[in-house]
Amino acid sequence: MRFVTISDVEAAAERVKGTALHTPLLPQLWAPGQLWLKPESLQPIGAFKIRGAYNAIAALPDAQRERGVVAYSSGNHAQAVAYAAQVFGIPAVIVVPDVTPRLKVEATRRWGAEVREVPIAERESAAHEVARERGLTLIPPFDHPDVIAGQGTVGLEIAANLPDVDTVLVPVSGGGFASGVGTAIKAKCPGAKVYGVEPELAADTAASLSAGKRVDWPIEDRARTIADGLRAQPSELTFAHLQRVLDGMITVTEDEIRDTVRVLARQGRLVTEPSGATAPAAYLHHSAELPGGRTVAIVSGGNIDPALLAELLA
Amino acid sequence: MRFVTISDVEAAAERVKGTALHTPLLPQLWAPGQLWLKPESLQPIGAFKIRGAYNAIAALPDAQRERGVVAYSSGNHAQAVAYAAQVFGIPAVIVVPDVTPRLKVEATRRWGAEVREVPIAERESAAHEVARERGLTLIPPFDHPDVIAGQGTVGLEIAANLPDVDTVLVPVSGGGFASGVGTAIKAKCPGAKVYGVEPELAADTAASLSAGKRVDWPIEDRARTIADGLRAQPSELTFAHLQRVLDGMITVTEDEIRDTVRVLARQGRLVTEPSGATAPAAYLHHSAELPGGRTVAIVSGGNIDPALLAELLA
Repeated sequence: MRFVTISDVEAAAERVKGTALHTPLLPQLWAPGQLWLKPESLQPIGAFKIRGAYNAIAALPDAQRERGVVAYSSGNHAQAVAYAAQVFGIPAVIVVPDVTPRLKVEATRRWGAEVREVPIAERESAAHEVARERGLTLIPPFDHPDVIAGQGTVGLEIAANLPDVDTVLVPVSGGGFASGVGTAIKAKCPGAKVYGVEPELAADTAASLSAGKRVDWPIEDRARTIADGLRAQPSELTFAHLQRVLDGMITVTEDEIRDTVRVLARQGRLVTEPSGATAPAAYLHHSAELPGGRTVAIVSGGNIDPALLAELLA
Repeated sequence: MRFVTISDVEAAAERVKGTALHTPLLPQLWAPGQLWLKPESLQPIGAFKIRGAYNAIAALPDAQRERGVVAYSSGNHAQAVAYAAQVFGIPAVIVVPDVTPRLKVEATRRWGAEVREVPIAERESAAHEVARERGLTLIPPFDHPDVIAGQGTVGLEIAANLPDVDTVLVPVSGGGFASGVGTAIKAKCPGAKVYGVEPELAADTAASLSAGKRVDWPIEDRARTIADGLRAQPSELTFAHLQRVLDGMITVTEDEIRDTVRVLARQGRLVTEPSGATAPAAYLHHSAELPGGRTVAIVSGGNIDPALLAELLA
């Protein structure tokens, strides 16, 4: 297994420049201690996923890229691949479960992608079949070095803007984001601690890191969390990275996530999806488990159903 | 009358650095044409006002500044002065009408300011009296060259990040913000057009610019708009600047403002107060009246009552 290096992340940063936004660090003066938010929710597609998807597509040999790409996802990765493909002017097929809400299907079509709706159990196999038949390249959501390197550009930006950061909080699902961010932070700010954050209803990575090997949580269990972007589990590749780069894991409750969506809207003036609020939730509700100091909490995305946001604000 | 110059704005930029955030330009891919938002709502106090207040206090002679400052406002200027005073470690008195909501009074006290509640009609005279009695300096919300220069730093940042901008949209109330931004844009991007934006219920500046002189709209009329930060009128100083730097005015309806608060939350992932949504509302609803091209709409603030935001989202 080859680990992603800081050079890979730096090469990714060159590629994503001009497509992914260099998001600012927002000081939060209302919070106790020293907290900065890194609002990846303000990316063009509303989430950090654009970084990894764009980097993976940009890194393909020209002839292969021209034939097009395929992804299976109904979430932010789908929009990231569709949008990146549009930037390159190449075909994209997004395979989604046939139960996907209309709104998400339309959001993906907006970027010119072809959306294929299939029964949920056939999603992955259908994507592989489309890839084979039409010569498209599959862009995985996390299990790929170029995706990890792309997500890691968030860590490079944190290191550039706050070189003396003490603690970085990053959400963990499939682990590509935390792998990339951790790789960048450990290389650029060796004194800083990197903590992964999970909902307690999908805390398979905390369990896995304790056990020293990957522990499987049934999807029925993980599906219970309101943080719908954090229901995946690490691959062999990302788990190996997480074992290297993470200093610890924090698990947050559903109530803490809901509360933090509300607090970020009221105090931080940011619209955040539940998954995007988990890292700030760890700061607000679990400070005793963290080393403290100058802390950056990454807000990973902002694609929340407006009705849910209204409910949480009321 | 001395006009604020680009040198004044550049000096202000040096002063506010490290206190006011250099906000990013956020490309909005969902909008027709080419739109960037400048989210001043992400400033520490949630509005651009920190720039002018901090610059005005920083520009005082040391001995005068040490004695402290006073302001009369119940809105974002109050919090800006209170916060800037805290940064300098000097006393601040904020005079507010005794009908001010508890939440706003507490938000101002949070920064260590002394809050004086007086009958609304005595607000201005009470502030002057406090200033006289205690040797404090009054920091006006817009009618001062240092305040105008501070607000103008937003224009400098736009020019630095998007030098070939074609159109800049800025809300107009007392006119300090538009005076400063217009001064910076006209100096740095002479080909760009600068448009002021007002609610049609408080469109005194549009009327004044048409008439070639200041026209007074009764406060009872202006108070009707939901954009509670845009109910003031220009002073002689700011009006003279607006006559020089604005290429036109756009007026937006209450429904357009409400709609834009909703759109910015859903598509832009930003929490915006009604006043802060007026410039984007001009872009979304009045494109036929604008020159188009690469357009920056400034989101001036994000301090909205959560209940109102919930209502608009539902």
